[in-house]
Amino acid sequence: MKTVGVVGLGLIGGSMALDLRRRGFASRVLGVEADSVAAEAALTIGLVDKVVSLQECVAEADIIVVAVPVGTAVKMVPEILDQLGDDKIVIDVCSTKEEICRAVKYHPRRKQFVSTHPMAGTEYSGPWAAQPGLFDGRACIFANAEESAPKAVKVIEQMYDVLNMRPIYMNAEQHDLHTAYVSHISHVTSFALALTVLDKEKDEKHIFDLASGGFSSTVRLAKSNPDMWVPILSQNRDNVLRVMDTYIEKMKEFRSAIDAYDEEKLRELILEANRIKKIIR
Amino acid sequence: MKTVGVVGLGLIGGSMALDLRRRGFASRVLGVEADSVAAEAALTIGLVDKVVSLQECVAEADIIVVAVPVGTAVKMVPEILDQLGDDKIVIDVCSTKEEICRAVKYHPRRKQFVSTHPMAGTEYSGPWAAQPGLFDGRACIFANAEESAPKAVKVIEQMYDVLNMRPIYMNAEQHDLHTAYVSHISHVTSFALALTVLDKEKDEKHIFDLASGGFSSTVRLAKSNPDMWVPILSQNRDNVLRVMDTYIEKMKEFRSAIDAYDEEKLRELILEANRIKKIIR
Repeated sequence: MKTVGVVGLGLIGGSMALDLRRRGFASRVLGVEADSVAAEAALTIGLVDKVVSLQECVAEADIIVVAVPVGTAVKMVPEILDQLGDDKIVIDVCSTKEEICRAVKYHPRRKQFVSTHPMAGTEYSGPWAAQPGLFDGRACIFANAEESAPKAVKVIEQMYDVLNMRPIYMNAEQHDLHTAYVSHISHVTSFALALTVLDKEKDEKHIFDLASGGFSSTVRLAKSNPDMWVPILSQNRDNVLRVMDTYIEKMKEFRSAIDAYDEEKLRELILEANRIKKIIR
Repeated sequence: MKTVGVVGLGLIGGSMALDLRRRGFASRVLGVEADSVAAEAALTIGLVDKVVSLQECVAEADIIVVAVPVGTAVKMVPEILDQLGDDKIVIDVCSTKEEICRAVKYHPRRKQFVSTHPMAGTEYSGPWAAQPGLFDGRACIFANAEESAPKAVKVIEQMYDVLNMRPIYMNAEQHDLHTAYVSHISHVTSFALALTVLDKEKDEKHIFDLASGGFSSTVRLAKSNPDMWVPILSQNRDNVLRVMDTYIEKMKEFRSAIDAYDEEKLRELILEANRIKKIIR
């Protein structure tokens, strides 16, 4: 059994801590958390056994999970590698992979780092958002796994197996392209939708009385935390911009069909969009 | 107890039929359905007691619920009113209200018509999508209720009370403006998102392997039926175009903040969008 250290006790770090101990992968979970309110909450909820300093965590844990926003992780992972003992492993769980993989590419301890992205989450954040079973049945990306030591990858595969995740292997570039399409753009469209309706609410106080389940589902991601999303959108800038451009094009196609009362075209666009039924539950 | 006739045995009509009988408001439910496969399914599932012709339905039912796409309803409601006996009531349940209210405004039997919009649904359609409890706890709009006979409105209020809906009263113009913001735009953004990702899937076969819960939730409405949505977007054209323009503006604000690596501005936009937390569960 391992001592696992989790740096950043938010939704993802907290949920991992919870299930890794409950399910017997970790004998002990140490937490590192810069925000003292969050640190105390994590202890009260029982996400971790102990809150420690980063130094202590690096010294004591066998596996260190870096679960902080990607802008911070890019600086923190090399620093942890600098002080890392042999046989220890560091992983990150960030939503963009190119920049973090680039930051450690030539680090002498690169092989002890495994870059992963467990594709799970909710629109909420903080230790109070942590939940058991969050990862069950979801995909976990291993980015540039060939740059890590095979035995380190194996340990982390076992760890995600305990979380009931299915591993997918790809390089960091592919990862960032794909997630721009199936995750990052969804957040941007939700943010824009929230802004659109909130703007109108200034004149029309009761506009949300009519909000139905469909609206809530489309706008849900607009609750997401800027601490997490600003660095993601920034680090994945080029891919995200490209997807946004396609998206804005599609919106304009709809706009001109509606504008021209072109019901034929509108029907065609909707039928084409309906193909998503075969892919997404 | 009443005989209720439901014209159009889809998601909405079928779900109403189900609960109105189960909960004892209707002693008998007659169904009218042009599609013979859907008609047979509705009988097999037990949504209605009998499938009849429109004439028979108008002759026998006390309350006639018109639950067909709004393009059809605009023609059908005046025709039903033409043949309607005294003391009978016709309602529609369409998602746009201006055009249908305009179509009957000067009809000699206008007072026997009540225009409503039960704000509930799913992305699925047809009698097989009908479900008990669909309307529970949702809002139901009564549009231009002052143009209907008070006693007709009262009966329909009782009917929606049985469906556990809370009534909201507004004029048809307000309704169409508000729903453009909290329903119609959500559908357009989902359709555009589906098209964007499906386009990319042509080159990147495995792009959907990474789709997480957030993506599914944002794209869910893209499964919606064109038979329903083409006429809605067409009838509510002016409002929808206006909302789309604001929305495209917001997307462009995001785009330029990302483009310029303006993390301050990005953070500000996301924090503003986060206000939706206080409004939507």
